[in-house]
Amino acid sequence: MKNIAVVLSGCGVFDGSEIHEATLTLLAINKKGAIYQCFAPNTTQHHVINHITGEEMQESRNVLVESARIARGQIKDLETLNSNDFDAIVFPGGFGAAKNLSNLAFEGADCKVLPLVAEKIKEFWTNKKPIGAMCIAPAVIAKIIPGSLVTIGNDIATKDTITQMGSTHQNTNHTETVIDAKNKIVTTPCYMLDANIAQIEQGTLNLIDEIIKL
Amino acid sequence: MKNIAVVLSGCGVFDGSEIHEATLTLLAINKKGAIYQCFAPNTTQHHVINHITGEEMQESRNVLVESARIARGQIKDLETLNSNDFDAIVFPGGFGAAKNLSNLAFEGADCKVLPLVAEKIKEFWTNKKPIGAMCIAPAVIAKIIPGSLVTIGNDIATKDTITQMGSTHQNTNHTETVIDAKNKIVTTPCYMLDANIAQIEQGTLNLIDEIIKL
Repeated sequence: MKNIAVVLSGCGVFDGSEIHEATLTLLAINKKGAIYQCFAPNTTQHHVINHITGEEMQESRNVLVESARIARGQIKDLETLNSNDFDAIVFPGGFGAAKNLSNLAFEGADCKVLPLVAEKIKEFWTNKKPIGAMCIAPAVIAKIIPGSLVTIGNDIATKDTITQMGSTHQNTNHTETVIDAKNKIVTTPCYMLDANIAQIEQGTLNLIDEIIKL
Repeated sequence: MKNIAVVLSGCGVFDGSEIHEATLTLLAINKKGAIYQCFAPNTTQHHVINHITGEEMQESRNVLVESARIARGQIKDLETLNSNDFDAIVFPGGFGAAKNLSNLAFEGADCKVLPLVAEKIKEFWTNKKPIGAMCIAPAVIAKIIPGSLVTIGNDIATKDTITQMGSTHQNTNHTETVIDAKNKIVTTPCYMLDANIAQIEQGTLNLIDEIIKL
């Protein structure tokens, strides 16, 4: 039975993991006959956003503690992730990927990725184990593995950012995946397009399907 | 096209709405060809729980603001819910139903339900519009509509609580629903049983299917 590590970045689209993408990733893994373990970095969120107003709140929250909400408490510190124990690693989207796992949202192509996150991505890549990413998270992968082929849908600014990183972007529509067979990277746009929740379900199913095939 | 009001109670199983149940309810509504609008009461959470340790955190969060994370910002104050605009009302589970929408978790059969929540449940019931509830939320419905028939799975203490409220409990297994045709109430156990996420998906699909039939 395939065992997939799912890396979360908080709990909520504007300052953490996109909840539908994360939940439907877990569902897709279960429905495709694999198992999962959630991980998140034990670090402070970049900020906390009121998801109604879009305004910053004067609060401080921890990425691992908030991610645990999506995982129903069954989550581990990313520090403890050993790639030998897993067949693949998957990153759901949400601004958490661009604000907590990296500072992509603020620095674009010059962004820095959290060293622990970069280390784990490289570890799976070096061991030729598949890497999956959805929504904005493929741009984080594109930064760590230059020369990779990814999709974030069709957003022009983000496509330019990925090109500046030395990777290649391929346009996609709802639920489509892009497979970089050489680097074993599978990506899908999810909510980077104006999608409905059933399209997110199908996109995550397609991504997990391709991950398992690789 | 059927329009369903979904009432959330925060964001996270131990102090708010159970995230998988809430997300998969939205997915089920979309897949069954209906539309939804999320609502939550604009009130302070009973408490904030660290979902890794289970311990209370010295923080204060607002039910409506946290629920907005699950709804990607597309949520309204429960105060503004007019039953004339909707065909049904659905309550996903999570401890939020028993801590924020009511004090069931602390007072059992003698619990009080938030007046605004009780008012909305009665409004839909009086207008003969279907009411759906999952996980622990059926016990809140059982309190407001004595004489109703509901399920929370097979937990003995909660069954006794429902009986003391003057309602009737029927045991169920994973994904099964109980239909109280007289009161137009549909309930399903979800994570009140030791379920996996695919069973939650099937349970929410079954519940939304029955709601739409009614």
